Amino acid sequence: MNPKLQELKNLLLEINDLEAAAGVLSWDQMTCMPPGGTAARGRQLATLKQISHEKFTRLTIGKLLDELRPYAESLPEDSDEAALIRLTARDYEKALKVPASFTAEFSNHTATTYDAWLKARESCDYKVVEPYLEKTLELSRRLAEFFPGYERIADPLIDFADEGMKASTISGIFNQLREELVPLVRAVTSQPEADDSCLHLNYSEMKQLQFGQEIITRMGYDLERGRQDKSPHPFTINFSIGDVRITTRVKENNLTEALFSSIHEAGHALYEQGINPDYEGTPLAGGTSAGIHESQSRLWENLVGRSLCFWQYFYPKLQVVFPEQLNSVSLDAYYRAINKVQKSLIRTDADEVTYNLHVMLRFDFEMDLLEGRLAVKDLPEAWAERFRNDLGLTPPDANRGVLQDMHWFSGTIGGAFQCYTLGNIMSAQFMEAAKKAHPAIEAEIAAGNFKTLHNWLKQNIYQYGRKYTTVELITRATGEPINIKPYIRYLRTKYSGLYNL
Amino acid sequence: MNPKLQELKNLLLEINDLEAAAGVLSWDQMTCMPPGGTAARGRQLATLKQISHEKFTRLTIGKLLDELRPYAESLPEDSDEAALIRLTARDYEKALKVPASFTAEFSNHTATTYDAWLKARESCDYKVVEPYLEKTLELSRRLAEFFPGYERIADPLIDFADEGMKASTISGIFNQLREELVPLVRAVTSQPEADDSCLHLNYSEMKQLQFGQEIITRMGYDLERGRQDKSPHPFTINFSIGDVRITTRVKENNLTEALFSSIHEAGHALYEQGINPDYEGTPLAGGTSAGIHESQSRLWENLVGRSLCFWQYFYPKLQVVFPEQLNSVSLDAYYRAINKVQKSLIRTDADEVTYNLHVMLRFDFEMDLLEGRLAVKDLPEAWAERFRNDLGLTPPDANRGVLQDMHWFSGTIGGAFQCYTLGNIMSAQFMEAAKKAHPAIEAEIAAGNFKTLHNWLKQNIYQYGRKYTTVELITRATGEPINIKPYIRYLRTKYSGLYNL
Repeated sequence: MNPKLQELKNLLLEINDLEAAAGVLSWDQMTCMPPGGTAARGRQLATLKQISHEKFTRLTIGKLLDELRPYAESLPEDSDEAALIRLTARDYEKALKVPASFTAEFSNHTATTYDAWLKARESCDYKVVEPYLEKTLELSRRLAEFFPGYERIADPLIDFADEGMKASTISGIFNQLREELVPLVRAVTSQPEADDSCLHLNYSEMKQLQFGQEIITRMGYDLERGRQDKSPHPFTINFSIGDVRITTRVKENNLTEALFSSIHEAGHALYEQGINPDYEGTPLAGGTSAGIHESQSRLWENLVGRSLCFWQYFYPKLQVVFPEQLNSVSLDAYYRAINKVQKSLIRTDADEVTYNLHVMLRFDFEMDLLEGRLAVKDLPEAWAERFRNDLGLTPPDANRGVLQDMHWFSGTIGGAFQCYTLGNIMSAQFMEAAKKAHPAIEAEIAAGNFKTLHNWLKQNIYQYGRKYTTVELITRATGEPINIKPYIRYLRTKYSGLYNL
Repeated sequence: MNPKLQELKNLLLEINDLEAAAGVLSWDQMTCMPPGGTAARGRQLATLKQISHEKFTRLTIGKLLDELRPYAESLPEDSDEAALIRLTARDYEKALKVPASFTAEFSNHTATTYDAWLKARESCDYKVVEPYLEKTLELSRRLAEFFPGYERIADPLIDFADEGMKASTISGIFNQLREELVPLVRAVTSQPEADDSCLHLNYSEMKQLQFGQEIITRMGYDLERGRQDKSPHPFTINFSIGDVRITTRVKENNLTEALFSSIHEAGHALYEQGINPDYEGTPLAGGTSAGIHESQSRLWENLVGRSLCFWQYFYPKLQVVFPEQLNSVSLDAYYRAINKVQKSLIRTDADEVTYNLHVMLRFDFEMDLLEGRLAVKDLPEAWAERFRNDLGLTPPDANRGVLQDMHWFSGTIGGAFQCYTLGNIMSAQFMEAAKKAHPAIEAEIAAGNFKTLHNWLKQNIYQYGRKYTTVELITRATGEPINIKPYIRYLRTKYSGLYNL
């Protein structure tokens, strides 16, 4: 290997180790840490982030990248080494713009905010987090301002999560989608409601978790290189390609909560576990964008996990686990229940049809907050009003309103939510392409066999890590850039069938 | 505060954060991490250790310490600030002698060795760890050699764990103790064996863990600032004064395994939780030596947890949890069972009388290995021979022989075991002093009240963290340095009663 590239990789490995260590500390904070650890944990995370940032923005790295540019240009465009150098140079340019002291301040603030959010949820009281959120907003703006020349202040924050995207691009896509979705929601919700009472009987937590674990293992989630824990808000995190963990939450009176959140997070985890092992410890190891990541979690959760063929295989097994609750419920009735469309309060519980409305309103709030049209103190009221408007419901309390998602309490305001809808859109593009290449996929799923699908995703998405950008990746895999048509086609077909439209 | 001292404290805080982060990674490795994480975890730990070491051995710190020396000397001898400066200077001198690259190499080696030990235990095969242990021995010698001028090569390694102690001091104490113990073991084991069959019925794991948790909470272990998990070898670890965790192991056919290991680890944890909160994030926050730490765990495990008065309170409660197993067993019979003296294979299961023989043979093996009288490959045979000699038993396999303790597979050979016997000796000194100051302690324990004892320990030991050395601390608390007499008095009185000597 080019000795300068080797030197660069050694330096990057140290930074990767520090980031992974910070990851372990965050995972621990969200799954295990006793309350007494909070103050020190914030400080510890801030220290790791600051050292990592200082080490990454060293002149040595800039100099190596400069020296390696001609070498990168001499390599075939598709070479991993060239991609590593290009990607690192992009990350480096970005990181240089943010002072290490800011990174530490932000990380420290995030740790205490997350703790305040937990407390706010206990007492169901927005006031507990309000001052923290004020500070988060201020920090989010300051972060964006390190990247002057933006069109809208959210752009740099969006770019962190979904490189190459801007507020105006997303607004454009969301407006297109909204035009298609609103009539579909109206048509579906004017039909008689599906009956999902069978999902809300009493289901033992342990059996739910065991059944979920059986499903995700069969999907291909490797428990030798991962584990599942409980946390207030499910998430996926990885400390190496060999250690990719997920969390879930479980409710005794809700069969779908743990089940679909496990499948969702396992979708993320399959992506991280499927990255080319040669990329270990380099910036190439990771998902290429939040949107692509969500396309994988949502593909498994919805296009696979809420499909009829999936339950043709798993429903009889579920009935064996919960005979009292489900023996009198037919597969068809169960399939209708898990796909019940309903205007609802909680994003993560929302059905596929209304889900994107939840995302769009959050995206709009982020723009309003960042651009000064909405004050943090007025957020709960604005939330209630917009909810009444878009979904015809008033949140009865803060936990079922503005406190429901951890995102603004564990990161920036701005750039936090668009990925979910981008992911939904792309999930349908990927699924269409996979089925086109392998028409037997559906029949295989109905036999509990996910290998062809999993391999197609590994070959076309997972293995590449961050080698390709979102646009490059989706174009290579599906032949076109992001496009809402396959998603609309998917929703129309599925829900016309379910609701006799 | 003196501005230079403030600057020093800020630098030390960063190092403290890095060490705490490494602690979280180790805890995770031993309680949660999937096998796939091993390779990366070794690297991550090595990186943290190396950065921490580099940061601690910076010239800036040396310069600040030099500049602060006159200030420290101007302070009252008993001042916390003076103690902090003195202690940091001692740590600094030691750390300077060890190259950062060695620290990283050692830490990396330790992580893979721990994993090999887990595998070796699965297959009960010493060969699996043999090459790792060869390397550990070589690294242990290299570490010692960074401290030339030692009397025996183990001295620097012993000094890491028990500052101020040397191999010759310990041999002296151990020889004295051996002279008293051997006749006591002989006398006790010539009496009829106690019947402990009631401890080996079937006891539900969950109920055992719950009962143990109830005991340690009552002892004063604060679960808001700690938690208990399972691990192959129980340990205590802390990431701040507000986050002190313990682990335990539990067996269905052994009522004492989880119980006494929980009490033991909670003894360590009470110490760490009881440190003056002003010391948070400084080198003063921590136990002053391994020996003093063990004096606390062994005090709670044995002098409290295996005493008659303790079970006067807890035994009726234990009978309520396990009525089928224990309703026909009297308190006296139970007390005899948990104090059964027996030549046995496993150190952590050994009774108080034979326990120190297990420690002494390990200490001697460490000396023999380091000084070249014993080869790593010959260790199992030497182990078997010495066991036959000292305890009249032959280990039937490696797991019940040389693979039983994690110490040599997670740290140096040398300095790993002496602390247990030093701790036993000092635990009796502390208990005598506490009871002398508060004669009601025993009666209080019999009423399930540990407050007076806990407060005495907090006042005389815990709060000081590392402020005083072992000798200073024990002299302040008991009026004399380390002395085997109280321990011998304690053993003779207790076991003469139990075995009608």
